[in-house]
Amino acid sequence: MSLKRAMMLQEAQEAPEVAARLLERNVERVLELVGVIKARDPQLALTIARGSSDHAATFAKYAIETQLGLPVASLAPSVTSVYERQMKLGGALVIGISQSGASPDIVAPLVAARQKGAITVAIVNEEGSPLAQAAEYVLPLHAGKEQAVAATKSYIASLIALVQLISTISPDEKLRKALWNLPAVLQETLKMEGAARENAERFRFVEHLIVLGRGLHLGIAQELALKLKETSGILAEAYSSAEFSHGPIRVVEPGFPVLALQADDETSALTMEAYRNLQEKGAALAIVGADAALEVPVKLVTPRTGHRITDPIAVILASYFLAGHLALHRGLNPDAPPSLSKVTLTV
Amino acid sequence: MSLKRAMMLQEAQEAPEVAARLLERNVERVLELVGVIKARDPQLALTIARGSSDHAATFAKYAIETQLGLPVASLAPSVTSVYERQMKLGGALVIGISQSGASPDIVAPLVAARQKGAITVAIVNEEGSPLAQAAEYVLPLHAGKEQAVAATKSYIASLIALVQLISTISPDEKLRKALWNLPAVLQETLKMEGAARENAERFRFVEHLIVLGRGLHLGIAQELALKLKETSGILAEAYSSAEFSHGPIRVVEPGFPVLALQADDETSALTMEAYRNLQEKGAALAIVGADAALEVPVKLVTPRTGHRITDPIAVILASYFLAGHLALHRGLNPDAPPSLSKVTLTV
Repeated sequence: MSLKRAMMLQEAQEAPEVAARLLERNVERVLELVGVIKARDPQLALTIARGSSDHAATFAKYAIETQLGLPVASLAPSVTSVYERQMKLGGALVIGISQSGASPDIVAPLVAARQKGAITVAIVNEEGSPLAQAAEYVLPLHAGKEQAVAATKSYIASLIALVQLISTISPDEKLRKALWNLPAVLQETLKMEGAARENAERFRFVEHLIVLGRGLHLGIAQELALKLKETSGILAEAYSSAEFSHGPIRVVEPGFPVLALQADDETSALTMEAYRNLQEKGAALAIVGADAALEVPVKLVTPRTGHRITDPIAVILASYFLAGHLALHRGLNPDAPPSLSKVTLTV
Repeated sequence: MSLKRAMMLQEAQEAPEVAARLLERNVERVLELVGVIKARDPQLALTIARGSSDHAATFAKYAIETQLGLPVASLAPSVTSVYERQMKLGGALVIGISQSGASPDIVAPLVAARQKGAITVAIVNEEGSPLAQAAEYVLPLHAGKEQAVAATKSYIASLIALVQLISTISPDEKLRKALWNLPAVLQETLKMEGAARENAERFRFVEHLIVLGRGLHLGIAQELALKLKETSGILAEAYSSAEFSHGPIRVVEPGFPVLALQADDETSALTMEAYRNLQEKGAALAIVGADAALEVPVKLVTPRTGHRITDPIAVILASYFLAGHLALHRGLNPDAPPSLSKVTLTV
């Protein structure tokens, strides 16, 4: 891996250009979709996704609920594909998220929802995919071919596509400004790769760890935990920092490694308190995101984007550098995780 | 721990009597609530819970969606309590689940939902608690005082309260029969404690593991994973077996311990295939639940209850014995996990 740069890291570096392309190219499609949403006024949003895309759905839940006040449910694929039950979805906004758009258990519930009269949207990278064909509206990710098994740019693109949709419905002018400024901020974030590589080395011998985030950063924590599993084989579990204090904290003993995501929003004081508590228990903390008034072994401060909804997008980009370089430090090829393939077809 | 029996195991043993008491005492309350639900015909159900109660909510999601076709969203407490956003919840059925009924971040969203005209239900053990007072309808758990930090009988009671509600709405006669037969089946399940103790010993030196389940057994897998964290300090992560194949499976190397829950329903063939695949990768499997045609080191076959919705309730009871005895084998007191208290107050 010394001469050839890891594909995962290379694709993560493409995030700023993908962001700019996506924002530009999807303007018309988003406007059309928002017209439909405003006219039909759904009382519920449903997401259908797996893997990284499901972590984008977690982010979407917090972003939609806090920004639009619309409750968001995650549709469990098996209810349709395995138990074969039909649900009351009449007026809902149903969003399928998938890089490949190929998995049958994502397509089936979306098809069922469309037949029931829901507004169906596919957020996909592959525009010719079954999921794109099944949905009434498509928001392409414009991420280009993604070759690494560990998704990076397509995940970031799915967050941006979701925020573009939300910001076009919401009257929040500050959010629109932050969104269009995102390609520049992501460009700034690319400069953190060196610091991420350096800090990743300290986690070299870790066998398991916890990734904490809260609210808008929970989906980011889930995504980082998955990347650590996929590229380094580390059993990394993501938790809301609030939920973690309800029992799971029991696993933390002196020296236990914790990757803690810090936001610059209403959750900041609460997560800080949780992280301080962990530090008192002897946990080895690495903080990624906003600056936190805690002395910890590793701190990766990401650029602020001007809005709490867009901040997590810079955080995940920095986290990808951390995860990719950690794999390299461990002597692993992040592009070649044993026994994984890019497209997983589940039922 | 040799002379005094662990409180956690003692309370798990009370499950059959709690089940019988709850079913009997809640008949009238459930009928009244079902009358309201049928009259107001909600298009969405929302659960509000944390910790073990949130795993009961996961179970409720699959049970309600497969049995009633009503989509279920998990309400993230922080959206109300931290971000202070109000959501469109007009016609929804909102179910708060909590043993203590005391946590402010569970009470606040339920209060907000009631003000917005939702049908609000509290499933609580403490009938005089703030959550019970905040809700329009209360389904008490009748579990008696729960002293162990690790919830057992109250979790089982919350599943039964949910199934009683669902079975009174559903026309499924078989489900009602299975429900009322549950105290007898749980009594039968108590006999498994010896086998659970014996098998638990084999996991004595485990540091982390994965618990797999699917569909109706996912909430059970989450609950078992939490118990392993709380009582043994083992980093145990729960996954849907379908989701696990999307990347996380990378962590499985020869000898990696997996607790696999097996259902006797539409998911059976698919989970069997996933478990066989793990076995081929060298995972050390323990199967709990329905019998599976796999030769594995540990198999705990639980009694069938006559319905796929009630089967997981016997599975979690057997799992509690497994978790409690594993802690004892490790020289730990399952009733005294370091740094945990029974009631966690988060914001």
